[in-house]
Amino acid sequence: MNIDMIRAARHRTGHRVRHTPLLSSPFLDDLVGKRVLVKAECLQVTGSFKYRGATSAISALDPKARARGVVAFSSGNHAQGIALAARQYETPATIVMPSDAPAVKISNTRNYDADVVLYDRGSEDRDAIGKALSDEKGLTLIKPFDEPQVIAGQGTCGLEIAADTPDISEAAVLVCCGGGGFLSGVALALEAEKPGFTCHPVEPEGFDDVTRSLVSGKIERNEKQTGNICDAIISPQPGEITFPIMHRLCGRGLLVSETEALGAMKAAFDHLRVVAEPGGAVALAAAMRYAADLPQDTIIATISGGNVDADLFKRALEM
Amino acid sequence: MNIDMIRAARHRTGHRVRHTPLLSSPFLDDLVGKRVLVKAECLQVTGSFKYRGATSAISALDPKARARGVVAFSSGNHAQGIALAARQYETPATIVMPSDAPAVKISNTRNYDADVVLYDRGSEDRDAIGKALSDEKGLTLIKPFDEPQVIAGQGTCGLEIAADTPDISEAAVLVCCGGGGFLSGVALALEAEKPGFTCHPVEPEGFDDVTRSLVSGKIERNEKQTGNICDAIISPQPGEITFPIMHRLCGRGLLVSETEALGAMKAAFDHLRVVAEPGGAVALAAAMRYAADLPQDTIIATISGGNVDADLFKRALEM
Repeated sequence: MNIDMIRAARHRTGHRVRHTPLLSSPFLDDLVGKRVLVKAECLQVTGSFKYRGATSAISALDPKARARGVVAFSSGNHAQGIALAARQYETPATIVMPSDAPAVKISNTRNYDADVVLYDRGSEDRDAIGKALSDEKGLTLIKPFDEPQVIAGQGTCGLEIAADTPDISEAAVLVCCGGGGFLSGVALALEAEKPGFTCHPVEPEGFDDVTRSLVSGKIERNEKQTGNICDAIISPQPGEITFPIMHRLCGRGLLVSETEALGAMKAAFDHLRVVAEPGGAVALAAAMRYAADLPQDTIIATISGGNVDADLFKRALEM
Repeated sequence: MNIDMIRAARHRTGHRVRHTPLLSSPFLDDLVGKRVLVKAECLQVTGSFKYRGATSAISALDPKARARGVVAFSSGNHAQGIALAARQYETPATIVMPSDAPAVKISNTRNYDADVVLYDRGSEDRDAIGKALSDEKGLTLIKPFDEPQVIAGQGTCGLEIAADTPDISEAAVLVCCGGGGFLSGVALALEAEKPGFTCHPVEPEGFDDVTRSLVSGKIERNEKQTGNICDAIISPQPGEITFPIMHRLCGRGLLVSETEALGAMKAAFDHLRVVAEPGGAVALAAAMRYAADLPQDTIIATISGGNVDADLFKRALEM
């Protein structure tokens, strides 16, 4: 992984991927007590940075592989990113989803013309299903985060952050973090273009695999993988490719509660007029909680959307 | 009013005013049955296009007038636009607001450091209060729509729409319309830069002064001015300056119900992940209702936010 791969991904995908705005509000600055810039990936195509990685990975395939098709395992944003990018590159896409995934996520993925294969989490082996599909039809598996071209595509978000902060030389960059694909791509881009910026992973409390891994210096696992409204960013452990990058480039991990994630969704509604999902709001929540502890005067936080459940959003509006 | 004033306004304000994105979603296109591009003025500074006009008008004042200060009557988005722009240009701002305006709008206006003067709608004369302030302190009154530099500033939104649609030569441009300042500015900009685009005012049913004025060819008034959730865009009648521009350049007016406005807020939440207020959602609602009746293949709709009441937003989420 290197900066040239990220620049090449931007070259391949720049006509499709939206350059999302860095939003701000004087009221949010007052609330946080520092200058806050919010990288609004909820305004990205399909609502999340996952589309960047999906478009990068599919556009990097050779024509034969692209014609055979791709397969992905996902119950959420990666599924929709792959499904839409595949349709745009005229690539057949098969998405393997758990049969108990939210109905709206299954139907949206189908609406992007992907072939959705449902499996039972209790009795069936996801990897075996994927391998069978891959062997049978010659499909290319596109992993959600531990995949170089996915990391490169997601890193284009870091190039945009650098381009849109010409007057800022020091900032803490808080990034919503699951397996670390987005964070490691952004950190690589900023290492090259903004050496005074420091990236931090942000995770939900109780699902702090990356935070603990950065402390111990080796890959640590989450004990559980369900039971939190920030499910969109929960993964078993950091990736084999992403962890060394994060370990080399990132500051300490920051943890937030479910209530804080809902509070950040409400702040984004009130002051920025954008819609975030809980997992996509943890970095803004961390800005609100940890700003005083960070040495930089400017905090940059990513935010993303995907499919936001209306009932959950109502809970955020009560905050 | 002419295009040169709009270009000059952009030159004066371009470093402060946000170039807002034109958002889209394949699901929204499917819902409407045509290609839909949404000009997201809810992402503008202060949440609405009113900031464009306010910044333009204050930056156009001579230094002495700027030092004396400005006064505006508004219970909503114009108040906040003027208050923030005045602070940025170090101009004292007095905002005359009805004492029954929503508390959040009063407190936000004060938080932008404006001097808020409250009056009783039943017993006091707003214009007399404004005139006394203006005479006593030499303040410049900035009207919300029938004011050339406000129209010029709001027209910069039209320049951005033109710049961001290089491949489109024909489109119906649906614009949320109160007194017509925003619409007439956008229509003037597009007359110069996109002669194949046709602008239409969109109003709430029962508050159709502009729609009727375009039919009769003279300024018509609304019978009532309250009693609709789209209050942000309800004004007594089109302006003396704005009406002739709209009459010369715009297609017929389009009307939507309160329920349709709430439905458009939900569609913006689901598919674009932005927050609109009811009055700022009427153009998207009209796109959803009237797309099949319009001859163009592309519909462009403005959307804006301001301060969105959480309880009202919950109603939209039920749609």
